[in-house]
Amino acid sequence: MPKIVTFGEILLRLSTPNFQKIEQAQSFNATFGGTEMNVGASLVKFGFDATHVTCFPDNLMGQKAKAYLRFLGIDTSHVKLQGDRIGVFFLETGAVMRASQIVYDRMDSAFANLDPSWFNWEEILKGADWFHWCGITPALSEGAAKACLEAVKTAKKLGITVSSDIYYRSNLWKYGKTPQDILPELASYSDIILASRKNIEEIFSMKVTAEKGKFVEACKMLMEKYPNIKRVIDTDRVQVSASHNQYNGKMWTGEELIETDYQDITHIVDRIGTGDAFLGGFIYGQVVLQDDLKSLQFGVAAGALKHTIEGDQNLVTVPEVESVMSGDKSGRLKR
Amino acid sequence: MPKIVTFGEILLRLSTPNFQKIEQAQSFNATFGGTEMNVGASLVKFGFDATHVTCFPDNLMGQKAKAYLRFLGIDTSHVKLQGDRIGVFFLETGAVMRASQIVYDRMDSAFANLDPSWFNWEEILKGADWFHWCGITPALSEGAAKACLEAVKTAKKLGITVSSDIYYRSNLWKYGKTPQDILPELASYSDIILASRKNIEEIFSMKVTAEKGKFVEACKMLMEKYPNIKRVIDTDRVQVSASHNQYNGKMWTGEELIETDYQDITHIVDRIGTGDAFLGGFIYGQVVLQDDLKSLQFGVAAGALKHTIEGDQNLVTVPEVESVMSGDKSGRLKR
Amino acid sequence: MPKIVTFGEILLRLSTPNFQKIEQAQSFNATFGGTEMNVGASLVKFGFDATHVTCFPDNLMGQKAKAYLRFLGIDTSHVKLQGDRIGVFFLETGAVMRASQIVYDRMDSAFANLDPSWFNWEEILKGADWFHWCGITPALSEGAAKACLEAVKTAKKLGITVSSDIYYRSNLWKYGKTPQDILPELASYSDIILASRKNIEEIFSMKVTAEKGKFVEACKMLMEKYPNIKRVIDTDRVQVSASHNQYNGKMWTGEELIETDYQDITHIVDRIGTGDAFLGGFIYGQVVLQDDLKSLQFGVAAGALKHTIEGDQNLVTVPEVESVMSGDKSGRLKR
Amino acid sequence: MPKIVTFGEILLRLSTPNFQKIEQAQSFNATFGGTEMNVGASLVKFGFDATHVTCFPDNLMGQKAKAYLRFLGIDTSHVKLQGDRIGVFFLETGAVMRASQIVYDRMDSAFANLDPSWFNWEEILKGADWFHWCGITPALSEGAAKACLEAVKTAKKLGITVSSDIYYRSNLWKYGKTPQDILPELASYSDIILASRKNIEEIFSMKVTAEKGKFVEACKMLMEKYPNIKRVIDTDRVQVSASHNQYNGKMWTGEELIETDYQDITHIVDRIGTGDAFLGGFIYGQVVLQDDLKSLQFGVAAGALKHTIEGDQNLVTVPEVESVMSGDKSGRLKR
Amino acid sequence: MPKIVTFGEILLRLSTPNFQKIEQAQSFNATFGGTEMNVGASLVKFGFDATHVTCFPDNLMGQKAKAYLRFLGIDTSHVKLQGDRIGVFFLETGAVMRASQIVYDRMDSAFANLDPSWFNWEEILKGADWFHWCGITPALSEGAAKACLEAVKTAKKLGITVSSDIYYRSNLWKYGKTPQDILPELASYSDIILASRKNIEEIFSMKVTAEKGKFVEACKMLMEKYPNIKRVIDTDRVQVSASHNQYNGKMWTGEELIETDYQDITHIVDRIGTGDAFLGGFIYGQVVLQDDLKSLQFGVAAGALKHTIEGDQNLVTVPEVESVMSGDKSGRLKR
Amino acid sequence: MPKIVTFGEILLRLSTPNFQKIEQAQSFNATFGGTEMNVGASLVKFGFDATHVTCFPDNLMGQKAKAYLRFLGIDTSHVKLQGDRIGVFFLETGAVMRASQIVYDRMDSAFANLDPSWFNWEEILKGADWFHWCGITPALSEGAAKACLEAVKTAKKLGITVSSDIYYRSNLWKYGKTPQDILPELASYSDIILASRKNIEEIFSMKVTAEKGKFVEACKMLMEKYPNIKRVIDTDRVQVSASHNQYNGKMWTGEELIETDYQDITHIVDRIGTGDAFLGGFIYGQVVLQDDLKSLQFGVAAGALKHTIEGDQNLVTVPEVESVMSGDKSGRLKR
Repeated sequence: MPKIVTFGEILLRLSTPNFQKIEQAQSFNATFGGTEMNVGASLVKFGFDATHVTCFPDNLMGQKAKAYLRFLGIDTSHVKLQGDRIGVFFLETGAVMRASQIVYDRMDSAFANLDPSWFNWEEILKGADWFHWCGITPALSEGAAKACLEAVKTAKKLGITVSSDIYYRSNLWKYGKTPQDILPELASYSDIILASRKNIEEIFSMKVTAEKGKFVEACKMLMEKYPNIKRVIDTDRVQVSASHNQYNGKMWTGEELIETDYQDITHIVDRIGTGDAFLGGFIYGQVVLQDDLKSLQFGVAAGALKHTIEGDQNLVTVPEVESVMSGDKSGRLKR
Repeated sequence: MPKIVTFGEILLRLSTPNFQKIEQAQSFNATFGGTEMNVGASLVKFGFDATHVTCFPDNLMGQKAKAYLRFLGIDTSHVKLQGDRIGVFFLETGAVMRASQIVYDRMDSAFANLDPSWFNWEEILKGADWFHWCGITPALSEGAAKACLEAVKTAKKLGITVSSDIYYRSNLWKYGKTPQDILPELASYSDIILASRKNIEEIFSMKVTAEKGKFVEACKMLMEKYPNIKRVIDTDRVQVSASHNQYNGKMWTGEELIETDYQDITHIVDRIGTGDAFLGGFIYGQVVLQDDLKSLQFGVAAGALKHTIEGDQNLVTVPEVESVMSGDKSGRLKR
Repeated sequence: MPKIVTFGEILLRLSTPNFQKIEQAQSFNATFGGTEMNVGASLVKFGFDATHVTCFPDNLMGQKAKAYLRFLGIDTSHVKLQGDRIGVFFLETGAVMRASQIVYDRMDSAFANLDPSWFNWEEILKGADWFHWCGITPALSEGAAKACLEAVKTAKKLGITVSSDIYYRSNLWKYGKTPQDILPELASYSDIILASRKNIEEIFSMKVTAEKGKFVEACKMLMEKYPNIKRVIDTDRVQVSASHNQYNGKMWTGEELIETDYQDITHIVDRIGTGDAFLGGFIYGQVVLQDDLKSLQFGVAAGALKHTIEGDQNLVTVPEVESVMSGDKSGRLKR
Repeated sequence: MPKIVTFGEILLRLSTPNFQKIEQAQSFNATFGGTEMNVGASLVKFGFDATHVTCFPDNLMGQKAKAYLRFLGIDTSHVKLQGDRIGVFFLETGAVMRASQIVYDRMDSAFANLDPSWFNWEEILKGADWFHWCGITPALSEGAAKACLEAVKTAKKLGITVSSDIYYRSNLWKYGKTPQDILPELASYSDIILASRKNIEEIFSMKVTAEKGKFVEACKMLMEKYPNIKRVIDTDRVQVSASHNQYNGKMWTGEELIETDYQDITHIVDRIGTGDAFLGGFIYGQVVLQDDLKSLQFGVAAGALKHTIEGDQNLVTVPEVESVMSGDKSGRLKR
Repeated sequence: MPKIVTFGEILLRLSTPNFQKIEQAQSFNATFGGTEMNVGASLVKFGFDATHVTCFPDNLMGQKAKAYLRFLGIDTSHVKLQGDRIGVFFLETGAVMRASQIVYDRMDSAFANLDPSWFNWEEILKGADWFHWCGITPALSEGAAKACLEAVKTAKKLGITVSSDIYYRSNLWKYGKTPQDILPELASYSDIILASRKNIEEIFSMKVTAEKGKFVEACKMLMEKYPNIKRVIDTDRVQVSASHNQYNGKMWTGEELIETDYQDITHIVDRIGTGDAFLGGFIYGQVVLQDDLKSLQFGVAAGALKHTIEGDQNLVTVPEVESVMSGDKSGRLKR
Repeated sequence: MPKIVTFGEILLRLSTPNFQKIEQAQSFNATFGGTEMNVGASLVKFGFDATHVTCFPDNLMGQKAKAYLRFLGIDTSHVKLQGDRIGVFFLETGAVMRASQIVYDRMDSAFANLDPSWFNWEEILKGADWFHWCGITPALSEGAAKACLEAVKTAKKLGITVSSDIYYRSNLWKYGKTPQDILPELASYSDIILASRKNIEEIFSMKVTAEKGKFVEACKMLMEKYPNIKRVIDTDRVQVSASHNQYNGKMWTGEELIETDYQDITHIVDRIGTGDAFLGGFIYGQVVLQDDLKSLQFGVAAGALKHTIEGDQNLVTVPEVESVMSGDKSGRLKR
């Protein structure tokens, strides 16, 4: 079985049931999420081994988080039990034109306050085929950024494929560094980057001048500067409403622009984690299907299916994705 | 902060969860509703002070109702604890072509049996900017009709704007009076009336003869007879199905007919109270935005959002309404 | 009141709440279903008497099943309490492109292991107007097939109308017989058959050679060979997604092909039992409306409404169906 | 199977989950109860046929109530669908020293407003072995009292055993009659009466002068005056707390005073309907065991078991009662 | 109505349903608690006005907290919307010998980071009869301690009775001060102190040397040094198990030691907030009953009742407490 | 970390919520249990590695079961995905004198139909310190019995400690063998046996003739015949009621009889799996505490705690058990 290692924060997700406003809720559904771990969780369902590296406080909430990762089939042997608290996000589930809203409460989490020396990356990455990280991690603290850098360097050294979700939230960077300070070096060790044209321009301080084909132009500039990067992928989402989205995927392979059809998700159950589900599907495609277009298509189909599942993780199997990928969107009852 | 006073019955709302038929339900979700109070509740979320005047029995159910109003931020200092029971309605939630059904059980409620002398309207309305009532109230009993008349007269005397939802249910009037006996005098003290052309014709015993522009014609006749009335508003609802509605608002300002675009609510969560949410938004527009078209648009956007929230009240804030009003129906996740 | 007798297995239905994957569910909603009983349950809501003939183990689960049938208004006086277990199916509720999935666990159920001598059909069918069975029953065991044959023979003898849902699941036939061995004789006693062209060809070993009008051709061949059969009906379902279906009904009357418009079910609550609801509506039409087109239309409207109700049975009344049948799909709130 | 007929009001029972105060509850558990019907429901579980005679409004709530009675196995063919509403009681479940509280809302129910001419008692009681009524029924309205009198007279004429639960609530009698006006004549047709010494004194305007053995003395006076009465039974309840009760049963047989040991219910789940469960058990004993002491013991054991079941009805079977009756209170797991 | 003002942090309380371990829970019941506010909430149910002074972040969670306080009937006009987060505690509900466990996550809450200048105590305390604070508040931060000191000084100046719950948690004091640094000055402005002998010795650096009557000795030493203090109260809890507690109250009045009987709570529903409920009852007694023994008895009865209610607040009324206080612990059903 | 391997069937546990009778339940709580796996799950919480060997069908239910084992921290790498169904038990939760009832539906489960050749015990047991099995396993089928025998033989050969829960259910043995045919040989490879005197006499066809000390006598006879057996342990349970049990543990060490005090569990939450929790605690004691009395005490304390947790597994940690073991049964809140 192929093996992926992921690194990043896990947050307790407390969501309101039945589209309730937070003000109404007398209870919250409780699960856990984390963009990198969500990618690994998808891949476990597709037959991969997955190890997630993170920190939890050594209390009942940390143990709960660990048990949840085990439930998902994720190896927790490199979870460090240290620190004071687990970050939380409260999710008010929207519908139609009413947007879902997230209230983050993640300051000073065990992960944000990590010490890079806790992680022996040579040992952690032994036997891995893939390493995945996201731009949120280095945004949290200097320690998290350093650990991430060590991880990608080690992965590179060991010949492990590195994918990077260059998604940075401008309001997160509070420890004195900017995305521009940190992300370019991290990205330079990547084989595959998920980024929009705008992300590329902002993070890598590039400016696309072309009138047309701006995404391709940005990709070319990026790859020229960072020759490790072999592929840039992105998705496009049409937000018809909170209950109805359409989206597709595209990729610059260094040679050509590949794009998939749009998936049409008409009755969204849960919007969170759908990008991670796309990435999980895409990585499956790269490793198992070994075809760029099919990777994108598998990713988009997987991401579409995630919109129908409550919680942050995609729990569908390869046959379910293949069925959608091959064009069957009928949702025909399986007996 | 502007202050609204509302007057009317509060019913216990017992609704089936998960689209269950009443026959199936082993539990009911319990909340409270009342068309006038719902208007006030909307306005509390928009920053108004709101006082609701009503009657509850002095028992555990009356106390529960009072606590619920407090939760909504409504001043309950003029709730009279008197009478035997609180009215109830059972709501079976429909979907697609299956209509929602309401079973009313409101006979002899504390409110219906009120004594008009319980309410000192001079004191209640002191400092208020707006008074709102609905045609259901005078339908319930002679006492309720009298109290309502005193309220609108006092409001007029104090220079308070009066809005009237001239919605009468023909099957409610059981105490010997007809809508035609009672509503015209009550309406005569109104500044703003929510009414359809048909309502106007029936209640005020008018007959529109024009071939076209019948709504405007009815409004003109009405305003001529009742010069206090400055605006007539109405909504038009296209019932695609129990799960999908479209609706807009229109207004005769005395000078011109203003109409909004239609809002398209494709995945209805709760249909009840959406007209009240429209009115709450409209009143916000009149008081704060002070623009007729924007009032209608704010009202329609607010009403559309209400379709996505369980319960009788609209719990959205001004920024949420403004976002929809300005054309963003994407429901994009807010982090 | 007209009276229907149905015969078949009842399964415990354990479904995940809120579109959960089976892996996520910490609880299952528990109810019972059975294709033939579901037809009877529909008809009880339409004013029929209904008796269901089946077997339950004489334990707490069998008693629960019996109480559930009573709740539905079905006469349980011919339920045999014998055998070891009640069959179960686990239902994972899908959405959009994610299909619902059923895991069956019905081997060696009390019904499958029945002894045909337990049922005195002369007595059971006394006073009945209609008998209904489905192709799943003879698929389960030799005993079930025999009991079914005795039932239809007796019904025929007593002049009771027999309807047959010739739906066979190829993976069920495990006791040494094939559908081709068993179903033709059973079907020969039917007045009305629900079957697709493909079903007819496979079960009755016929081959339609016509280029066009294949369904009609198949019906003609079938009726020629089995002159008891007076009508063949079928439905066509367009699976837009797991959340959105369209379907209609058609019938060969022996003389003409009748077809209804398509019903459009845009927000499916529960997909299971919709075919049974169609049949229940159709039988109501045959017995009460006594018009072929209206029977089909009533059936299709009833089936459409079933998609909005959780559980296997249709719980709507005649006025609710008539409203949809007459073209009102607005789902307008009924107060 | 022996057959019992019961007559009385059915109320919708809306109880708070998890010991919540009514003020806290966002939902209510919904079931139905009625003291006489509860007796019949117990007996159905013990193998009797039971018919309940009552009135429901012909709406979704009335249909729900009817379906619930069917679920319990009670024959509903003599339920009259007439009237406006079904009475309701709200139950706040107490614990330890906090008492449970009931808020009644039963005025003008379909049952209270019944017309005695709706019921043909000769037909209803045909084939019955037992008729049971309770003092609440004649307290509700003149019509209910008249219907009850016709019922007991007819039962007497047909040789059916009549049991009476002479429990009157002083605050119910609002139609101009007192318990003393009405109950003695009704009671005179009874074979068996459930009444305390105090009840007897108050209702029948008797005064026990003995220092000791007052209950027996009262029974003797009663039987002398009303020779139809063959047995007087009563229970004694020690209220340790809302979570812990003890109680026993006693009977004056006309010749001797029989008393059972006390049952100790240490962890009460639901206090409501336990007296009805006692009566159901007692009647089983009279009809099946045909022994006075065993009747009382079976009744007390049945009533004790009822304290462990949510809802108004006792759902235990004969073996469960026999086990407790024979002294086994170990609650040992049955596999 | 008497008026109490309270000051302190409000935490989101997330508790597991049905005695679940935190590891098992898929949802948490969500409510709010705060030791000082809980006291005010009790008093609202007893007819007092209550104002709570605290800080919430200006986001959906802060608004939810504010709505919850309104639901309880607490005046929120002095709640400051400022800061980043609301503190949280996770509650795993124990039973029998398994202890309940709390995981606190309250660092850097909006309240802990308050700026004392936000509060104008002269204005806040205007018209108040009572001010209550607890030793947790000054433990949180220098700002909180300062605000608390200003509050008690102002209260003293205005002649308002001050009660202090000298409960300090040694593990909270993390900002460089010790309880011994801060609490004595704060306590010196109190009229009434809730403290154990051990608390007194530790906080006020006293050492009781008497062999017997140590509590009284400690009280005497305390009152000598801080002459404002008029009464010292304490409770004694016998922890039979997590499901069964007994406790009483005692008071040194400056002249005599008063003690109540023990209340026996045999089936605990919720252990949290019972001390606050005691204090709420005690303050009611001081203000309304104006008798020391009755104050203690009312407090102990109120606290006992709180053990039967889920959530942090006591929701019982004066008649419920009086009933228990007068010795009726029967929990007899109230109709 | 010490490592335990367990072998046995896993059943889906479907239990009624809130003490409902099975007849009432509209949903079942769903979890999994298995006597041997429960022992392993306890030990995971105490810091052991645990591997469970069993069979699941390769469908959604099998995957759910596997995910549940992972959640518990149990290694599932030796779970065989083969066979048709997973066994089920329905649990009706009793209270006070009403017994809990289990309806088993486990015939022809994947485990019962296992093929012994699927398991390579040398590989499975590599590195293990302990192997545990129960008498239910060889009762299910010849294959299960054979696999069990191979397991204990291999364990013996590898020097692994073997514990046996000689609990046989007479009604399970349906494949032509008796407990007397099978269990003695299996037991002969055990180091430790959990058995009552009665079990020993029946299974090993021995007859204790002593008047006193019969348990010791039986142990002596057993050890004489099967010299591998070093310790015999047993528990004694006093069933006060379904809500209140007391129990202790005893052991014959070959030299002396050791007995613990009784634990008193006064408010039982869940009775199932308490014996397995005892065994888990006992094994922890043997391996870690290495003291016979302490092993028994730790086991009894662990088992007592299990009664307070819903589900089949004990989820408490070593400090929680130690606290109870050391005599603290106060359930004092841990902050």
